[in-house]
Parts: sequence; C-alpha cells; structure tokens
Amino acid sequence: MTAPLDLDLLEQQVRAALETEDITTLRELVARIYPPDLADIIERLDDEDQQRVFSLLELSQAADVLDEASIDTARELIGQMPVEQAADILEELDSDDAAAILTEDVPERQNELLAAMAPEEAADVRELLRYPPQSAGRLLNDRFVALRESDTVADAMERLRNIVHDAAVIVYLYVLDQHDRLIGTVSLRRLLVDSPNRPIIELMRPSPLAVQPETDQEEVARMVARYDLAALPVVDGEGRMLGVVTVDDVMDVLLEEGTEDVLKFGAVAQGQADETYFTTPIVASVRRRIVWLLFLFVAGSITANVLRLFETELEQVVALSFFIPLLIGTGGNTGAQTVSTLIRAMALNEVRLRDVWRVLVRELLVGIILGVLLAIIAFGRAFLEVPMASLAITVALSVMAICIWANIIGAMVPMAARRVGIDPALISAPLITTLVDASGLAIYLLIAKLLLGL
Amino acid sequence: MTAPLDLDLLEQQVRAALETEDITTLRELVARIYPPDLADIIERLDDEDQQRVFSLLELSQAADVLDEASIDTARELIGQMPVEQAADILEELDSDDAAAILTEDVPERQNELLAAMAPEEAADVRELLRYPPQSAGRLLNDRFVALRESDTVADAMERLRNIVHDAAVIVYLYVLDQHDRLIGTVSLRRLLVDSPNRPIIELMRPSPLAVQPETDQEEVARMVARYDLAALPVVDGEGRMLGVVTVDDVMDVLLEEGTEDVLKFGAVAQGQADETYFTTPIVASVRRRIVWLLFLFVAGSITANVLRLFETELEQVVALSFFIPLLIGTGGNTGAQTVSTLIRAMALNEVRLRDVWRVLVRELLVGIILGVLLAIIAFGRAFLEVPMASLAITVALSVMAICIWANIIGAMVPMAARRVGIDPALISAPLITTLVDASGLAIYLLIAKLLLGL
Repeated sequence: MTAPLDLDLLEQQVRAALETEDITTLRELVARIYPPDLADIIERLDDEDQQRVFSLLELSQAADVLDEASIDTARELIGQMPVEQAADILEELDSDDAAAILTEDVPERQNELLAAMAPEEAADVRELLRYPPQSAGRLLNDRFVALRESDTVADAMERLRNIVHDAAVIVYLYVLDQHDRLIGTVSLRRLLVDSPNRPIIELMRPSPLAVQPETDQEEVARMVARYDLAALPVVDGEGRMLGVVTVDDVMDVLLEEGTEDVLKFGAVAQGQADETYFTTPIVASVRRRIVWLLFLFVAGSITANVLRLFETELEQVVALSFFIPLLIGTGGNTGAQTVSTLIRAMALNEVRLRDVWRVLVRELLVGIILGVLLAIIAFGRAFLEVPMASLAITVALSVMAICIWANIIGAMVPMAARRVGIDPALISAPLITTLVDASGLAIYLLIAKLLLGL
Repeated sequence: MTAPLDLDLLEQQVRAALETEDITTLRELVARIYPPDLADIIERLDDEDQQRVFSLLELSQAADVLDEASIDTARELIGQMPVEQAADILEELDSDDAAAILTEDVPERQNELLAAMAPEEAADVRELLRYPPQSAGRLLNDRFVALRESDTVADAMERLRNIVHDAAVIVYLYVLDQHDRLIGTVSLRRLLVDSPNRPIIELMRPSPLAVQPETDQEEVARMVARYDLAALPVVDGEGRMLGVVTVDDVMDVLLEEGTEDVLKFGAVAQGQADETYFTTPIVASVRRRIVWLLFLFVAGSITANVLRLFETELEQVVALSFFIPLLIGTGGNTGAQTVSTLIRAMALNEVRLRDVWRVLVRELLVGIILGVLLAIIAFGRAFLEVPMASLAITVALSVMAICIWANIIGAMVPMAARRVGIDPALISAPLITTLVDASGLAIYLLIAKLLLGL
C-alpha cells in the first residue's frame, strides 16, 4: 500500500498479459496504473509492445502518458500513429503540455501537428509558443475560476462548481474588473465557510502577486516556493489576467534548474530550453563548451610561463617535475570543494556578503587542518618515490601551502562574484582549478628554491 | 502590481518610519508585507531596529517571519526575547516548522524552549524530532481532514468546514477505517459537485500513494513532483495515518537538494541535515572533505610514477615539463564539462543506460571538434613559449588526444556508475580530473617520445 510502487512488478504483469495476448486483463491493468508509472513501463517495452499497450489507453490516459514519457519514447509513440490520432491526443492535453511536446519532443513536426489539431486548441498552443522558452508564458494555463467584483459567495461557488472538473486551480479564485484586469484573489477556504449572500469583494485579498508572461520560469518557481502558492497569476502589460502557472509545473522547473547548477559548475554555458542531450546539435554543444575551454586554456597557459621562469631549477632537479601534477591536482580538488560549499551556502542564504571575514577565518582553519593532514601523507609518498629528504619536505610543505591557498581562493572568488553582481553559481570547478594551477606552481617552486638551495 | 515586489522600496519605507519613530505607520506598513519579504527586510536592519520591528508584529505574523528568517536572524530574534515569548511564537507555528527552528536555528536552546512551550504543542514537536533528519516525519503535518467510510458527501463537507481555516490541505480528504488506517482519498473537486447524500465510499480513490515517516525527504519530493500531488499522506508501519507532507514543504526540499548536487559535484561528502555553513563544526567540515581528498591524492600520486617512467625524456627536453599543467588542466576541464552534461542528462532521464553507444559516438565527435580547435591554439601558444616546431606539434597533438580521451572518460564514468547502482551525481569533477591526469600525462609523453625521437 505504501509507495514507492513496485514498478518492476507492474512491468512483469504487463509483460505477462502481453505474452498471453490477454487484452482484457491488460486493459484493466493499465487503466489502474498512474500515468508516470505507465510511461516508465512503456519505455522499457520494445517498439511493437509499446504501441500495443498505448493503443489500449483511453484518450485522456494516452495524453497523460505522452506528457510523462521521455523525449525518445514520446517521439516513437507519436511517430507510430496517424497524424490525426496524434492531434487528438494533443488536443486532450493542457495547452502548456502540448506546447512542450511540440517544441521539445517533435519540433520537426510542430507545424504538421498543429495544422491537424482542432483550430481552437491549436490557436491556444500557438499563443503559448509566442512566449520565449523557459518563460512563465510557456507554462500558462487559462482554466482558472474568474469572478466579478459584484459576485456574492453563492455566485462564486456556482461558478466554481461549473468548471471544477476542469480547473487548473481551485483553492484560489480570481476577481477581474470589467476590463479583465486582475484586482484580487479569494480563497476557497473563505468561500466554504462564509455566508452565501456576502459580496466577495469583502473577502478579497487585493493586489495579488502576479508575473508577466515573459518572466523567467526560474523566477516564477522561486516566487511560488517563497510565498507558498498553489498557483501564480500571469498578467499582461495592462494587468489583464492571462492565466495561472500551477505548482506542479513549478516543481518540474525546480527539478530541472537544480540540475542546471551542476552544468554551470562544470563550466558548460547554458543552452536552449527546448534542447535535450540528444536533440542538441553537436555544433551547439561545442559552442557552449569551447568558450570556457578557450578562456581556461589561455588562463592555464600562464603555468608554462611560471615553469619557464624556473627552468634552471627544473634542469638541476628533474625530480621536482614529478610532483607537479599531484600538487596542482590537490590544489584544484581542495578549491573545488570549497567553492561548492560556498555556492551552496550562498544559495541557501546561510552566508551573506557581510560574513566575508568569518568565512575567511573558517576556510583558513579548514585549509590548515587539511593541509597538515595531506602534508604528512605527501611526505611519505614523495620519499618513497624519490628518496631525498629535502625534496620530500619541499613537497609536503608545498601541499600544505597550496591547500590553504586553494581554500582561500575557493572561498573568496564566489563572494567576490556576488559582490560585483555575478551569480556565484557561475563560478565553476574548472575556473577555480585553473586559478589555483599557476599560483600553486609558483608556491611549489619558490619553496623548492629556498629549501633545496637552487 | 506585478512581482517581483520592490523590496528596496519597502525597506526604505520601514527605515523612514523607524527614523521618525512613527509607530502607527510602521505597524500598518509591516502588517501589509508578506512574511518572507518582511523577514528579508528585518535581516537588513541593525539588531536594535530588528527588535523594534519584530515587537510590533502580531503573534501569527511574528511566527511566520521567524519561520522565513535566516538562521542568523532567527537566532538573534529568539536570543533577544524572553523565553516565554519565544515559546509562544513556537506554539503558533506548525509543528514541523517549530521542529526545524529548534534543530537548525537554536539547537543549543532546544530543551529550554520545549520546556517553556505548552505541553501539548511541545509533545507534538518532540514527536517529530523522533524521526531522522531529512525524513518525511520531520515534515509531518497532522492537520488534515479525516473521514470515515460511512460518511456522506454532506458529512464530509461539514467536517471540512469545521477545520478549513486551520487545515494544511483541503483539496484531498482522507478516509480512515476504524483503526485509523488510511484506506482512500476523496478529492474536494468531487465533493463540490456530488449530491449531498452520496456515500463518500463511492467517490473514494482506494489505495492512495503514501510514505512512511522514515522515508527520505528527497524521495518524498520526487514523488510529490512525479504524481503532481498537493500533499502526500504519511502512514506508520500498520498503515495508520500520521499526517501529510504538503507541497510547499516539498518545494523547499527541492530547492535545498538542488544545491546539494553541486556539493557532490565538488567532491564534498554529505553532512547532517541540521547543519548550516557556520553551525557545522570545523572538524566535521574537515572530515567530510578529507576522505575524498585523500583518495584523490593517492589516485593522483600515480602521476609521479608516470613522470618517473619518462625521467630520461624529461631530462633531455626540460621544456616538455612546461606544458604538463596546461595539458592535464585542459583534460580535466573537458572531462568536468562532459560529466556535468551527462549527470544532468541522466537526472532528467534524457539519457538511459541503453543509450551508451549513442553517447559514446556523440562525445567522441564533440571531443574531436574541441580537440582540433584547442590544438590549433595550443600550437601557437607552445611555439611562442619555446620556438621548437616538433615540441609545438607534440603539444598540439597531445591536447587533441587528451581532449578526446577526457570526453570519453567523462561520458563513460557516470554511465558505469549507474550501471553498478551508484548515483551518477556522486561522480565529482575532481574525480574525473584525477582520472584524466595520469592517463593524460602518459598520452603526452608517449607522443613526445615518438615525435621528438627521444
């Protein structure tokens, strides 16, 4: 009874029914499965069985499954059915979900499918497609309950009952003036207990939060989360209500944006919203990565200059070069850890700009402890490789110094970024690594020069 | 009228009213501000003004502001008020929010404050604290509408109206048997339109999704997002209903977990849920980082062995060592980009295990293009540093080979991780960098040996 549902078991049952060609059982079985689960099960079947199961679904369930299916599966399912049938299913979906399928799953068939859809539904979808990708407009749902200022509680309940089966949100009702401008919201909680004759204007919360359709979906998501909303109204430049963005769409945005931060941290520039791993053209992938790579390459080539400065020392003790990758690697790793810790702490508002000194002291301490621990290991490792005590001491001291230095860089760079108005999440691990590389080398070779008397 | 609200303007108004000591205006002003906004504004004031504004709030608004305030501010606000007043505010909060404040904001005063709270509310909070941090139990809200199997639609609406002002969720009502076991849900949408005499058992959706209180909050969040729920019931081992986790708590979890992925990618082990940047003991920070650092250090020390193998070559052409940091740095950066791309694609289900060959071909292509582009730059850069054509060609070819190799490693490691059941999000940038370091070096020096005839 308690979730997580046993998807494997359900899959076995579906496969068994397919094998015995027991269509009645299969039909009953799939009718009971939640659409996202059914989408997952269908994905695991081969193309022919996918089609067999999908064709058993009622239109509304087929629409839900298509909505939940991965891009690959959605493409296959749509590809295998007549265009009219695909259009029927798209009509069944909310406009925002149909728009998402037409732009993300089968962009090359967008026009063909829109042409096959009923004119009214197609117009609704085209309307949404006018807005930029990843904007509130793309998530717009126009099935909300609209009230007039003159309505009573009884009127409001009547209106709600008329469209309740189809409304995207029922916990808020929206009061519009004669020009359809949003002037307030009424909560269903109030309607349920207030007297039927009471004018809704008396229960209305005026000047509700709202966004414009061009607002970025991440900002919409942050607002919904911040103010604990079930839906956020979207209004045009004149304040006319266009629809709502509901919390379930917002959750999908949050899941998606969370993974985007990992991309940024890996130094990959942001792509088009509509693209996915396989649908992104190779050239676009390259473009998104080469800018950072080139920048890091040029920045990293300073290391060659640093080493050239110490050419004589390296010629005298070639063994010095053995530990270069290890030392700068450790510096990069420590720096990446610190910067990820800081990015998270700043995103959660645990650290603010005015905390800069506290952060510095803390990371200095952590850096010293980590540095001492690694220095002990480094001494042993270096001595094992090249039995020369002065060199092993040089390596150990360098590890310590580089650890501390990388910790400071990793802590200060994201804070400096925020100071000048750059999103700290844009500070990537490779950027910190590259910054630490050249300076770490200089630290190492200076210590070597001093200790080895070169 | 449309958001984002102008927080700066509101802050100015609050400051102006504070300056002129216009308490009436100030009280009216703050009463109109949404709690999360007010919390932000209060945070920007100095300690004395914080207290002045906070003391003007009604109990319920004070509770909401405390709930939304950052840990630092919450600590200061609670620290500056008598323990009885703090207890009153905590009583006003939902148990899960009070539990969060007592464990995250003022853990050292948990017992003192619980003792000062009304026994019943304190017991509710203690109940929640029995569950592990970051579990469904910690998010539990017991203010749901419970129905009996024998109820009619009219009974259900009556029950709903009685607690609607206080219920955590109203769009679902929960049907319990005589042992309080959850047997089904009824949606408010159905109740609003069905005939009053109809038994709710006829509208009930049986065997609803539910979780146990020990379920990890991330799994709860993923279920709520997957099935588009407004609330998810929590039941004990016998199926008795304990409460619900609501979607607004789930959104906060998603925001938090999104930033956790960045930590993992930075190779920092996961900490205690209750800890924040400044409240984490330094020793705990070190522990969480040293394991990865040590592992990477040991893995990275292979690079010293590789270089030792090529000692003669490095002695003959010291200039070879100049480009070591640049080459392995570029390999690390390319690898980090690829792995972050794959982690995201796998998290969004755009790439599955069976796509391994398609991924390989794609990343190979991207690697070749990136490699060729960087090789051109590398040739120029190397020749500028050391005017020796054969060396510059060696560096250029190595950059290309390392780029391609790093791309393959960065694509295959997260897929291999998933294959053996490890979360791909645990594959960190430093891990890939370290893997690419030693192999990249070997590639470079082998190419040098061949081309330079060493």
